[in-house]
Amino acid sequence: MERRSARSCGLWMGELAPGLHNDITDVPGVLVGHVSLIKGYGPLIPGVGPVRTGITAIRPHPGNIYREPCQAGIHVMNGFGKSLGVPYIQETGLLNSPIFLTNTLSVYDAAQGMLTYLLQENPEIGHDARTPNLVVFECDDSYLNDIRGRHVKPWDGILALNRASTGPIVQGSVGAGVGMCLFQLKGGIGSASRIVPSQGKEYRMGMLALTNFGHLEEMLINGVPIGLMMKRANQQKMLCQVPGSLILVGMTDAPLSCRQLHMLAVRAPLGLGRTGGISRMGSGEFCLMVSNTGLEFAAPLSDWDLDPFFQAAVEITAESIWNSLFYATSMAGRDGHLCQALPIDEVLSWMG
Amino acid sequence: MERRSARSCGLWMGELAPGLHNDITDVPGVLVGHVSLIKGYGPLIPGVGPVRTGITAIRPHPGNIYREPCQAGIHVMNGFGKSLGVPYIQETGLLNSPIFLTNTLSVYDAAQGMLTYLLQENPEIGHDARTPNLVVFECDDSYLNDIRGRHVKPWDGILALNRASTGPIVQGSVGAGVGMCLFQLKGGIGSASRIVPSQGKEYRMGMLALTNFGHLEEMLINGVPIGLMMKRANQQKMLCQVPGSLILVGMTDAPLSCRQLHMLAVRAPLGLGRTGGISRMGSGEFCLMVSNTGLEFAAPLSDWDLDPFFQAAVEITAESIWNSLFYATSMAGRDGHLCQALPIDEVLSWMG
Amino acid sequence: MERRSARSCGLWMGELAPGLHNDITDVPGVLVGHVSLIKGYGPLIPGVGPVRTGITAIRPHPGNIYREPCQAGIHVMNGFGKSLGVPYIQETGLLNSPIFLTNTLSVYDAAQGMLTYLLQENPEIGHDARTPNLVVFECDDSYLNDIRGRHVKPWDGILALNRASTGPIVQGSVGAGVGMCLFQLKGGIGSASRIVPSQGKEYRMGMLALTNFGHLEEMLINGVPIGLMMKRANQQKMLCQVPGSLILVGMTDAPLSCRQLHMLAVRAPLGLGRTGGISRMGSGEFCLMVSNTGLEFAAPLSDWDLDPFFQAAVEITAESIWNSLFYATSMAGRDGHLCQALPIDEVLSWMG
Amino acid sequence: MERRSARSCGLWMGELAPGLHNDITDVPGVLVGHVSLIKGYGPLIPGVGPVRTGITAIRPHPGNIYREPCQAGIHVMNGFGKSLGVPYIQETGLLNSPIFLTNTLSVYDAAQGMLTYLLQENPEIGHDARTPNLVVFECDDSYLNDIRGRHVKPWDGILALNRASTGPIVQGSVGAGVGMCLFQLKGGIGSASRIVPSQGKEYRMGMLALTNFGHLEEMLINGVPIGLMMKRANQQKMLCQVPGSLILVGMTDAPLSCRQLHMLAVRAPLGLGRTGGISRMGSGEFCLMVSNTGLEFAAPLSDWDLDPFFQAAVEITAESIWNSLFYATSMAGRDGHLCQALPIDEVLSWMG
Repeated sequence: MERRSARSCGLWMGELAPGLHNDITDVPGVLVGHVSLIKGYGPLIPGVGPVRTGITAIRPHPGNIYREPCQAGIHVMNGFGKSLGVPYIQETGLLNSPIFLTNTLSVYDAAQGMLTYLLQENPEIGHDARTPNLVVFECDDSYLNDIRGRHVKPWDGILALNRASTGPIVQGSVGAGVGMCLFQLKGGIGSASRIVPSQGKEYRMGMLALTNFGHLEEMLINGVPIGLMMKRANQQKMLCQVPGSLILVGMTDAPLSCRQLHMLAVRAPLGLGRTGGISRMGSGEFCLMVSNTGLEFAAPLSDWDLDPFFQAAVEITAESIWNSLFYATSMAGRDGHLCQALPIDEVLSWMG
Repeated sequence: MERRSARSCGLWMGELAPGLHNDITDVPGVLVGHVSLIKGYGPLIPGVGPVRTGITAIRPHPGNIYREPCQAGIHVMNGFGKSLGVPYIQETGLLNSPIFLTNTLSVYDAAQGMLTYLLQENPEIGHDARTPNLVVFECDDSYLNDIRGRHVKPWDGILALNRASTGPIVQGSVGAGVGMCLFQLKGGIGSASRIVPSQGKEYRMGMLALTNFGHLEEMLINGVPIGLMMKRANQQKMLCQVPGSLILVGMTDAPLSCRQLHMLAVRAPLGLGRTGGISRMGSGEFCLMVSNTGLEFAAPLSDWDLDPFFQAAVEITAESIWNSLFYATSMAGRDGHLCQALPIDEVLSWMG
Repeated sequence: MERRSARSCGLWMGELAPGLHNDITDVPGVLVGHVSLIKGYGPLIPGVGPVRTGITAIRPHPGNIYREPCQAGIHVMNGFGKSLGVPYIQETGLLNSPIFLTNTLSVYDAAQGMLTYLLQENPEIGHDARTPNLVVFECDDSYLNDIRGRHVKPWDGILALNRASTGPIVQGSVGAGVGMCLFQLKGGIGSASRIVPSQGKEYRMGMLALTNFGHLEEMLINGVPIGLMMKRANQQKMLCQVPGSLILVGMTDAPLSCRQLHMLAVRAPLGLGRTGGISRMGSGEFCLMVSNTGLEFAAPLSDWDLDPFFQAAVEITAESIWNSLFYATSMAGRDGHLCQALPIDEVLSWMG
Repeated sequence: MERRSARSCGLWMGELAPGLHNDITDVPGVLVGHVSLIKGYGPLIPGVGPVRTGITAIRPHPGNIYREPCQAGIHVMNGFGKSLGVPYIQETGLLNSPIFLTNTLSVYDAAQGMLTYLLQENPEIGHDARTPNLVVFECDDSYLNDIRGRHVKPWDGILALNRASTGPIVQGSVGAGVGMCLFQLKGGIGSASRIVPSQGKEYRMGMLALTNFGHLEEMLINGVPIGLMMKRANQQKMLCQVPGSLILVGMTDAPLSCRQLHMLAVRAPLGLGRTGGISRMGSGEFCLMVSNTGLEFAAPLSDWDLDPFFQAAVEITAESIWNSLFYATSMAGRDGHLCQALPIDEVLSWMG
């Protein structure tokens, strides 16, 4: 079954025009790298496998992020998560590390890798300079993956950082998304972008989602309760049990302050709502928004110029989530667990 | 043009079954009363008119709310609002007053009426007992209304309290909704309810929305960008300029704690997102959730029992907003401003 | 018993130097006005008296605050309060109205006066411009005052605004402080200021406190448990029963952003702690910090320049509270209730 | 120089009576374990030493904390910190892991140890059960310690857990406190407890502080500006440069809800203020409050019963901080850096 973006299937994805690749790397300077770990099959043997996990690194700009931090805002939609680095961003409005996405029990291994990387790059840390705040987000991929095995190692994180490059990026069952489930189907990594007109200029804004939440009957595609229809038609024999969570990382080249980026992050649930998400109990949902254009280089926009950015934030949240569904491929994991890809053609035929 | 609910037009409004009236009064004990103030026409003469405003009162139960307060949770989606009584609810998790909805410049007059009412009912207040926390929400109806005239008087608030009764309630251009605009069409009061199954019991949950936000091109109905289609078809010659805001008041008879009610309130943006809302700059958006079953009468539910309530919260948020649009009737106001009702039949024909 | 400032009694009030008057008006442009309402004696007859209340107005600058709003940050220490205008400041970081302090049941009357004042001054409000966010703080003076009588009228608020002038200001049992109790002794209005050196410049920072909280045994003066000593010595035959609350309004001429002002407000509890306050249940405690130097006129300071401001915020919080105690004079009120002034000479003799 | 508690020096530490050991282990069930790492001397060789660090483990009860979680509330006073596990506690009000304190760059190693421990104890995690939320707090000990060397290893964390025992506990330059500085003197671990009378019962409440903040001139002891006096007297030739931060962990056996525990945590700054703290820029300050009596075993107390707990929270915050100062012994570290102990006798003589 060929995978393709929701937009390429003819679905309406919003008013604003997407960027060149329609992914987060349309924001100049943003780099993304994946490391996918897929190994073994059969029954779960903790510490051995099967391994269905990975790590995704996002770098806001190619420079030294510790020395050139970015304005950032974070919105905790549902705090049931074990992500690292949240209070510092809430206090200071700054991001001074790369961003990792991985599985819940590997956040500390991932952080170890990032710390080694940053210490090496910045000999002043902990000597005569302050420590960075490491940002690692997570979802629980234990339905498919031997999560107890902690198979993501520090060097996988460093590898993902080194692999990070411009787009277009690979989406679906890749990197941190290898073992994730969305609406009891296969989820993972999705992305989208918009060109945002404001005050006579054009800015870029992009989102990357790691999706791992929801029940099939909640799934909406362009407002149509396809999930409910699939469930009633008994199309899906095997539905994965979802431990939940959604991570959203947004980037823009607009010179926005941390307070304004927080306003953008707060709009993410409006996009999540379009996909049918109800933020179930146990679903850790965070949205981080980052600007990679320092306020020293451009005057920040007025709050009254933000409406097109709000529109973009809502649209790319929804489109990223849908793209993770449209791009992801079926994945079998531990104990015979199978997470099936969205049957795109049937869905499209039902949507008329 | 006959007005009717979105549901009665055959639109899909969600998985869960609505209550008898499909409005907030399906929650046993909840009472709603409207006072509509419509007077004069022609150019604005501040202090004289035209008057296009009103007040809506919600009483969580027929008893003395000051002496029998309710557990409550509030979520400030967009704090750009002048509503009264928010910090106390955030601190204590209690509602100990009725709830008023009215226009922005009349919140103090409304509060004066509520205070007179509560002082009369409770001679102990300010004598040997504590003061109540008055809750008054607002939207700005100045596109149609002489808002500077402060035409809602304290006695209108008292009248709304006295009129408060069981349902079904009147929706659309009524009470606080007389002068409100939604997606540049006519908005106002909308409501919806659900029967929520949890742990072998059935609970009721209802929402009442006061809608006054958005641009036409954002409006989604069941995922279809009808607003954009209308705008492109140039169907609407006159579009009202929207000062923004959305108030959501939810009620349930489930024995939920203030913390759990806050979790419900936090899900409201997921429903708002379904209608196309992007929470524009300047739009004060609040969601208050109240339980009228005291925790002393029933053990609170576990957090893990809340998913059906989350589902209901999302569905009734969206349906209440749509109902305000489907029920509202066109209204002409000051300076020739006209706010047109949604053309239901055209919309339905376009939706196929 | 002559009343004088804590500092003039030789008590150590901190490291930084105070401004000329050692009150909030040392910040250039800040104006303060009081209206004190004292009338009648004897048993409480609700609606008649005795009246022991008032209103205090603070204007951040002499200009039109609606058209020239100020950066502002607010910290809700204990949300058990009925103050008006909090969510808007939290969302926008702006103050676009004067500030009133008054009693709990008069906040709506006070707001009515402020609204009339602002509508008159700004004919564009509600016509083709947005509405202001009215800020009215309160404490409960019902131990002395006929609070149910709502004796503060809208015109008293307007009068306080018109009376607002530069300093030195009157402190103690004046304005909103007429009927307030502190540590079961007489409290009311207190103020203090500091000269804050930062980056080679000198800024001014001032605080005004409305004090109405605490039990005698908690009171600390310069770390000495004088309250406990007084209680044990049974010095105070009559102790007022305190319904609680503390309002702190700070001003500075430093060009700080709303985020930085919020950081200042968050330090206020550190000053409150020095006075022995424990933020009892039912005590609504808010700290608002405002800069009257627009960021368009000067680059904001770096976060790393803020430590002297933090020091100043802590010191003037404590000194303002103590000053309200040292300046306040004994006051008899309803039903024979008596609130005694701090016996300064005994206290000083005990402190050695 | 013999070290002893602030209380044993005759200083007034508050109204309420302390528990048997006047430390956190007075709360029945609470266990504390330290691992101190002190090795090498001379110039800093990153990765080699000198090592001046450690880890402290707190277990709320002797049982399986993952399976028997505790109600918990957390207050972020100053979010400039890299502590792990904050958002989950804010969302759920639960603590389901032990608590570690260590240095900033060792939080991930410490977390690795805790994770290994919890996975071993609970084979269901990540198999058919949810993941725990690991709580690791930190301060920056890089003034004395080779922090880049990451000398705290996962097994040190496991060792601290295994060593955790009932009291009395060791305080001062021990465990996570080995390399910490307070008011530019030696800080580290401090603790205190209170017997809290409420509703005819007696509860226990204890605090453990990890102190690493402040400048000498801010230090107050019982309200006396001893730090300023020391600075002016030039007593301290060498003052350590403080990277900042304060961690407070409180425990109680009172059956309090997470909302009430949050109210307690919010009072911690009132105690910090008594010691002279101003929460400088860069100082990550967190207060976690935990109840180890499940609400299923006892009805929660009313909010109106909390005042004695607030009093206790304020007192033990201040006393814990002072105790860390009074117990800590001088420590020499990297590059000839020396952090001197408080000269207790001089201080006492100055205080008269």
